[in-house]
Amino acid sequence: MSSKWQVDFNCDLGEGFGRYKLGIDTVIVPEVTSVNIACGWHAGDPSTMRDTVVLAKRFNVGIGAHPGFPDLLGFGRRRLSISDADARVYIWYQVGALMGIAKAQGACLTHVKPHGALYNMACEDRKLAQAIAEAVYALDPELILMGLSGSALIDAGRAVGLTVAEEVFSDRAYNGDGTLVSRTIEGAVIEDVSEVICRTIQMVKEGRVRAIDGKWVAVRADSICIHGDHLGAEQRAAAIRKALEAADIDVVKLSEVCAHG
Amino acid sequence: MSSKWQVDFNCDLGEGFGRYKLGIDTVIVPEVTSVNIACGWHAGDPSTMRDTVVLAKRFNVGIGAHPGFPDLLGFGRRRLSISDADARVYIWYQVGALMGIAKAQGACLTHVKPHGALYNMACEDRKLAQAIAEAVYALDPELILMGLSGSALIDAGRAVGLTVAEEVFSDRAYNGDGTLVSRTIEGAVIEDVSEVICRTIQMVKEGRVRAIDGKWVAVRADSICIHGDHLGAEQRAAAIRKALEAADIDVVKLSEVCAHG
Amino acid sequence: MSSKWQVDFNCDLGEGFGRYKLGIDTVIVPEVTSVNIACGWHAGDPSTMRDTVVLAKRFNVGIGAHPGFPDLLGFGRRRLSISDADARVYIWYQVGALMGIAKAQGACLTHVKPHGALYNMACEDRKLAQAIAEAVYALDPELILMGLSGSALIDAGRAVGLTVAEEVFSDRAYNGDGTLVSRTIEGAVIEDVSEVICRTIQMVKEGRVRAIDGKWVAVRADSICIHGDHLGAEQRAAAIRKALEAADIDVVKLSEVCAHG
Amino acid sequence: MSSKWQVDFNCDLGEGFGRYKLGIDTVIVPEVTSVNIACGWHAGDPSTMRDTVVLAKRFNVGIGAHPGFPDLLGFGRRRLSISDADARVYIWYQVGALMGIAKAQGACLTHVKPHGALYNMACEDRKLAQAIAEAVYALDPELILMGLSGSALIDAGRAVGLTVAEEVFSDRAYNGDGTLVSRTIEGAVIEDVSEVICRTIQMVKEGRVRAIDGKWVAVRADSICIHGDHLGAEQRAAAIRKALEAADIDVVKLSEVCAHG
Repeated sequence: MSSKWQVDFNCDLGEGFGRYKLGIDTVIVPEVTSVNIACGWHAGDPSTMRDTVVLAKRFNVGIGAHPGFPDLLGFGRRRLSISDADARVYIWYQVGALMGIAKAQGACLTHVKPHGALYNMACEDRKLAQAIAEAVYALDPELILMGLSGSALIDAGRAVGLTVAEEVFSDRAYNGDGTLVSRTIEGAVIEDVSEVICRTIQMVKEGRVRAIDGKWVAVRADSICIHGDHLGAEQRAAAIRKALEAADIDVVKLSEVCAHG
Repeated sequence: MSSKWQVDFNCDLGEGFGRYKLGIDTVIVPEVTSVNIACGWHAGDPSTMRDTVVLAKRFNVGIGAHPGFPDLLGFGRRRLSISDADARVYIWYQVGALMGIAKAQGACLTHVKPHGALYNMACEDRKLAQAIAEAVYALDPELILMGLSGSALIDAGRAVGLTVAEEVFSDRAYNGDGTLVSRTIEGAVIEDVSEVICRTIQMVKEGRVRAIDGKWVAVRADSICIHGDHLGAEQRAAAIRKALEAADIDVVKLSEVCAHG
Repeated sequence: MSSKWQVDFNCDLGEGFGRYKLGIDTVIVPEVTSVNIACGWHAGDPSTMRDTVVLAKRFNVGIGAHPGFPDLLGFGRRRLSISDADARVYIWYQVGALMGIAKAQGACLTHVKPHGALYNMACEDRKLAQAIAEAVYALDPELILMGLSGSALIDAGRAVGLTVAEEVFSDRAYNGDGTLVSRTIEGAVIEDVSEVICRTIQMVKEGRVRAIDGKWVAVRADSICIHGDHLGAEQRAAAIRKALEAADIDVVKLSEVCAHG
Repeated sequence: MSSKWQVDFNCDLGEGFGRYKLGIDTVIVPEVTSVNIACGWHAGDPSTMRDTVVLAKRFNVGIGAHPGFPDLLGFGRRRLSISDADARVYIWYQVGALMGIAKAQGACLTHVKPHGALYNMACEDRKLAQAIAEAVYALDPELILMGLSGSALIDAGRAVGLTVAEEVFSDRAYNGDGTLVSRTIEGAVIEDVSEVICRTIQMVKEGRVRAIDGKWVAVRADSICIHGDHLGAEQRAAAIRKALEAADIDVVKLSEVCAHG
């Protein structure tokens, strides 16, 4: 019998470009249940995308598109003032490209999660969020839209009729309004594993997280973001997963979480 | 009742990029039955691709992908020594991206025609041709592969089980081996409209064309390439079309030509 | 004997890319005294840059670098949140590239004018303006920095010890604070040639312009921006130039204006 | 008193891009006397270029430009059929950009060495070699042009009046015609350090190397190419350097080698 609580572990993958590699994808993929694959604009190239799809298939994890800004130089982390119409076609282009590569490997996409500055902007800006949600829906209404728990992107996804996956961050401090504390601020990243585990269990089971100002913030944890680009990332992910399972939380694919959501 | 002879008119479209425009797509599209849309690498960007798909739908012409080399600076016309594995993923990426954009407009692709130097290389090189044909088949076995009549690309397409469309050039001189006379050589382009029409009818009805060395070359004309990027292109296309119809040749969509092929 | 008033006419040039052309550079260049050449990031490519330098030399106009954001897709018109350190190296890279091309043609640069969103951001943001001014100074302290009259970029240029050129726009409406009225607002562009001429003479001779809210705004007109990318641009430029000369204002190269400034 | 024999050690540096790093530049730079810095097309970006110039200055090594094809995806290792006119402006653009960055750090370039496929093509193709040599001369006749010993690039450099640096490869097998054995062939790379040292001393002192077919090939060793992108590269470089110095060969900057050449 399955547990009362279920959560997905997601990780960004395929972030190399040409001769450049980033992180060790083969090491982190066994620890997660979903992966977000870069689509060639802020990172990723067709060969890397194919290799990453093949890797994801081998480990039976959910495959998602991770579209970003056309800014390889800035790794998609710099805000770019695009129009809503641009956002729509950028989603179609990048997600379509990954769909093509996936289809040729006999694989399908389950979700879309914007990357970097596009993610941050879409979580704040209702119009941009709506443009992205509509674009995903037009591409395939069965795709799950992943975004920051409680954000404009989640609202927009629900409003257009998409299944949404609310994402939480196990090792990041939250502001009182549910946004993440900027990495430029002291204490933005929580290093202590016990605290990370404690907060994560609370987010999944109690639906809340203690913000940096002491307030409780309501969150919904359909998926937990796991970073794979630093040393020891896989051990940390394994430890969190083990602790969650001990706390009666099943770590399962996004499609299963959302099916029961 | 339909005519004994049928041929498709195809034209490259959507070759702008960002603020740059190339040719007047709206003027040439009424004169053709199929269009090949640039996929963002040698030309084309997501907005232009969407606009071009919408235009193609409005005029009810067949929509094809026109993937090329990652060389916007050279417009995809410079040979690049890529591996066969690269060719495969480059096709998936570019055709997939256009499929995504088309799907979001409620449109489907009917064919794939490589662009520029990739086209020329694939028409000569059996291994590259096979890689491209396999890639198209893996993406969707219903896609029609368009290539130079009698070329390695056509052979490869047939060998993998794709429907192929053999393309001829109404205004280009042929070498004795069925390849096109290089544009750098005097007489490569035939300017005289009467001669263009005469040769075109011969290619469609008799399946042959007089090469520059006087020999007859066997060709099969499933589709005629129409250039839309020079002044008066649409009048020329209309004149050829009218002459063909007067000679009992129907100008119809590629899907119809190939259905009866 | 030279007139009491002197002003430079500047125009953006070399804005094509590869096979793409923009505007008719050869038509507008005889009407101006300085040109700003795109450096390959938002527009321009090495061949176009060389051709434009050669053209500028032939017409004996001042040659300036026109560096922009790495955003060919958006023509450098979209704001990108770069760091000040990035701004510095982006200036060095682009201006250095044009210097290399100019040197190989026996030509020298006289000025630098940021392009598009980088220009707008640098005219507002003191820290970014300072980074750009310092970067230009480090490259060559003799270079003239061009920016919107009265802007942060002009202040920063003076502060680091550069000669600055204050630019005014003959056909654009001004806000009460000296910034330009956004093109998205009705009345942002002044079409009437007589009014354009009248305002321009006032800006040069009286050092002021009537803002959209009726207030007078103080400006200094070292250089007037001439747009060359629309039909009839050269006739318009010629008409303004003739009217200015009739009003005892000499239209001369930037280096001369700044020598007497 | 200086030794009878002198040779430069050169290494490619600054081959990262944006968030991507390649090799550990700080570890290899103390072992060489000249560095070739990627100029932003096949690798390198303005920030990386600046950091690499600063690093080179700190270690007092010669700074060279390493221009390549506009092919970041292929790391400049794929042949691209460019025109000679393109080659010229590509050199000006990339070397000029690095000159700008260097100048702003108070540094100067000493040499130019084409990268990857551009290097290989220029070493074989007389016309391309001449275009590159002329382009370097037009930029600055004091720049040293580095190329494969005995190649067309070396001949072209001498013919236009440039100082040239003939480069040899300590760990690569040679064909009987003086070209390098392709990496795709067994035995192309010599792993044994003693053999590498022995061959290197022979190349410097005797001006010859034993080809893979047993023949002696005449070479001139102004500079030895050191690869810095694999594990233990710096130990290997240090070992070769020590052995050379024990054999009465001074390892000095390119400018000194060429001054006495």
